[in-house]
Amino acid sequence: MRDFDVSLLCDFYEFTMGNGYFRSGKKDVSVCFDLYFRKVPDDGGFAIAAGLGSVIDYLDSLHFSSEDISFLRSKGIFCEEFLAYLENFRFACDVYAVEEGTPVFPNEPLVVVQGPAIQAQLLETMLLLLVNHQTLIATKANRICRAAAGRPVFEFGSRRAQGTYAAVLGARAAYIGGCSGTACAVCEKMYGIPAVGTMAHSWIQMYDDELTAFCEYARFYPDNCIFLVDTYNVLRSGILNAVKAYETVLKPMGKRLKGIRIDSGDIAYLTKKARKMLDEAGLSDCTIFVSNSLDEYVIRDVLSQGAEIDSFGVGERLITSKSEPVLGGVYKLVSVNKDGRDIPKIKFSENAGKVTTPGVKEVYRLFSNTTGKMVADLIALREESFDFTAPITLFDPAFTWKRKTFEGYTAKRLLTPIYRKGRRVYQPPSIQQIRDFCRQETEKVWEEVLRFENPQPYYVDLSPKLWEVKQELLRRGGK
Amino acid sequence: MRDFDVSLLCDFYEFTMGNGYFRSGKKDVSVCFDLYFRKVPDDGGFAIAAGLGSVIDYLDSLHFSSEDISFLRSKGIFCEEFLAYLENFRFACDVYAVEEGTPVFPNEPLVVVQGPAIQAQLLETMLLLLVNHQTLIATKANRICRAAAGRPVFEFGSRRAQGTYAAVLGARAAYIGGCSGTACAVCEKMYGIPAVGTMAHSWIQMYDDELTAFCEYARFYPDNCIFLVDTYNVLRSGILNAVKAYETVLKPMGKRLKGIRIDSGDIAYLTKKARKMLDEAGLSDCTIFVSNSLDEYVIRDVLSQGAEIDSFGVGERLITSKSEPVLGGVYKLVSVNKDGRDIPKIKFSENAGKVTTPGVKEVYRLFSNTTGKMVADLIALREESFDFTAPITLFDPAFTWKRKTFEGYTAKRLLTPIYRKGRRVYQPPSIQQIRDFCRQETEKVWEEVLRFENPQPYYVDLSPKLWEVKQELLRRGGK
Repeated sequence: MRDFDVSLLCDFYEFTMGNGYFRSGKKDVSVCFDLYFRKVPDDGGFAIAAGLGSVIDYLDSLHFSSEDISFLRSKGIFCEEFLAYLENFRFACDVYAVEEGTPVFPNEPLVVVQGPAIQAQLLETMLLLLVNHQTLIATKANRICRAAAGRPVFEFGSRRAQGTYAAVLGARAAYIGGCSGTACAVCEKMYGIPAVGTMAHSWIQMYDDELTAFCEYARFYPDNCIFLVDTYNVLRSGILNAVKAYETVLKPMGKRLKGIRIDSGDIAYLTKKARKMLDEAGLSDCTIFVSNSLDEYVIRDVLSQGAEIDSFGVGERLITSKSEPVLGGVYKLVSVNKDGRDIPKIKFSENAGKVTTPGVKEVYRLFSNTTGKMVADLIALREESFDFTAPITLFDPAFTWKRKTFEGYTAKRLLTPIYRKGRRVYQPPSIQQIRDFCRQETEKVWEEVLRFENPQPYYVDLSPKLWEVKQELLRRGGK
Repeated sequence: MRDFDVSLLCDFYEFTMGNGYFRSGKKDVSVCFDLYFRKVPDDGGFAIAAGLGSVIDYLDSLHFSSEDISFLRSKGIFCEEFLAYLENFRFACDVYAVEEGTPVFPNEPLVVVQGPAIQAQLLETMLLLLVNHQTLIATKANRICRAAAGRPVFEFGSRRAQGTYAAVLGARAAYIGGCSGTACAVCEKMYGIPAVGTMAHSWIQMYDDELTAFCEYARFYPDNCIFLVDTYNVLRSGILNAVKAYETVLKPMGKRLKGIRIDSGDIAYLTKKARKMLDEAGLSDCTIFVSNSLDEYVIRDVLSQGAEIDSFGVGERLITSKSEPVLGGVYKLVSVNKDGRDIPKIKFSENAGKVTTPGVKEVYRLFSNTTGKMVADLIALREESFDFTAPITLFDPAFTWKRKTFEGYTAKRLLTPIYRKGRRVYQPPSIQQIRDFCRQETEKVWEEVLRFENPQPYYVDLSPKLWEVKQELLRRGGK
């Protein structure tokens, strides 16, 4: 593919503002931006944070080539000092982030960027793009894998992905969220995500008949035979020929038939019939794999009808998060340093839901010492300190009369330092570790919050001090 | 971003099948695949073909690196002859495609690949990914621009795009579909698509008050002032300060205020009020730009309520085609050459809608000589010839009693040769030419087919001979 510099994958206004900060003497003013989302996709109870790996790739290599500079110069609106600044760009911000694989909730910062205004502003588009997309897909994968109730789910959507990175980083996010592998070969090479696949309908059509196609495949791949059985007719042709190919080719070699795949039709009905036919042929170890327009709802539905399915291939509805293809994360200025003090900033809006929460923040997660479950998140100003050995009373920031006191809990900081003054201080875990972490943490989410329909809202509360800062700014009209 | 080889961005089964074709002596059997979709997104009347530019980028550079080969070897299932074949891969297929910007309809081939089985198979994933994604976004953009009824629409969605290529190639597709520009800077550098933008809310928040923020901006960019007026309150603060900044900074310089932008609230109500305030301030040439959760339906709705809007910025609902984020294009084997003859192939399915149409095809589009409008498409076998100077009778392939005779028409081939035996024979037009072509061709679509709600289905008919070939294969159960 045509290569391009992601340094310019940036809303143009980041540059007009950057040049403006430069000209108005504000470029080195230290500011703080929060990246957060306001609503969980699919009305779910939580999302799975993802994208930090790509954010690190981006920030580690952020620079502006002489071509980039020439392009910007050609616009005729940027001062030479600004262009020279970009040409000699050295990243100098502090970045904090929630680690990949962590369950996260609306309105809590997933990434916090603190540093010179000119720099922190420039990161907006790419940080949002990477975190929004990958968090969305990890979240969808997590839902789908939970619906599959322990059965492996494979990501099968490259052909319907919105571009090449949507395929590759989508498969990575899906793996983090709980998928067992992908159909996309390059993902194994790049990330070590197991890539799987055997045959398409075209393989069957290339031969004079289905049986010959299966037998040939079995001859070439005796250890990995998963026959696609719906090219002509699942029950009257596909399964019969799969069994015959087993008898003809695999059995004499001492091999077993690994599986069959069904890609169309009523999968509840077909898999029950197929299971019976395979069992009667002595192939009770032959797995049944399905892959037709699946998502968490279809999977839950057919399993509740007793469908006999061992694993799932999920395509377009996972790789695009089709039912809700956008995580609407935003990147908002929350503080501006003036004379050595961080002044909290708020953004009003004609839409009440778009009002921001000001201030440089820390997020704490409280886990019950008895159950191990996560019980509440507390968003506070970073400057605050807490005695987490004592009981703590939290209140709902919208309905402040809703209060709850927690005892016997352990608090954990959610925001991890990733860069300090532009130097990376964080070594990302392996993809396998991230996936394991995601599974462990998802197990700590209350059952009521895991629910697909009307999940119980999880407590994400503001500290009294942060709440007061926000109210004060609201009263003063933001000034 | 981490670079990667799209040659392996490929479902793993393309390689197991390729290796299988190699081992079974079928690798050089000449086959034909059709790429087509079955349903127009958003229940629209047509789609806008896009993605061919990227398909050419992909095919022009298709090769397998020694790293790719090592990776494949490490799987332990591919024969060395197959790996050597990939290492020395030379593209040798014929490729035909519908040109970018063309209105297209369900079930007609957008891309036809003819060549050695092993090669044509390998292209499946990338061809689908590129054409599905870009056709989807061009189609959505076309709908949105038609709703805007001549007002410029700008693509504003990078931050919500599904990965970097979704942002960049999505902006390109949106431009083809009719958008006037994008917020994404790199798209101007790469494709010459105008990149626009002035300020975010953070610009306002960086200053002690809104008026100062506007005045500073006006001082730096007197020729390109579009003030974002909803940080605090559109009518009671934003517009008043915009007018004051004009009076204070721009007017003394002899400059005009180019525009204001509203990014929240009720845009029908606010824009009407804003228009009045601006007019009363003598700024009737100041444009009103809106950008909050827009799509074709919202735009049509607020315009029908008399909203005073000069241009639109459309974000997530365009860049992801949020209301329907998948174009379900497929790539199906339709013919296999045997002893020098192309044998049509069909794929049955448990779902009747998934049955394929066999044979090596040509697509003709008929335009009325009196109105210039496109009246019907005819899918035929490539070997057929027609006398298009005579009246022609077409029939609906599903309801064959629905017949219509056309006279006074001009027929045009839709499939253009792109590669012959692997050599490119097509020079893509400029993006500007593609965009102009799209506009011209969209104007040739019947009003009844342009409709958003319940558009009249356009005639896409099969030639009697092709219909007969399909029926015969259906009767014989595909054999």
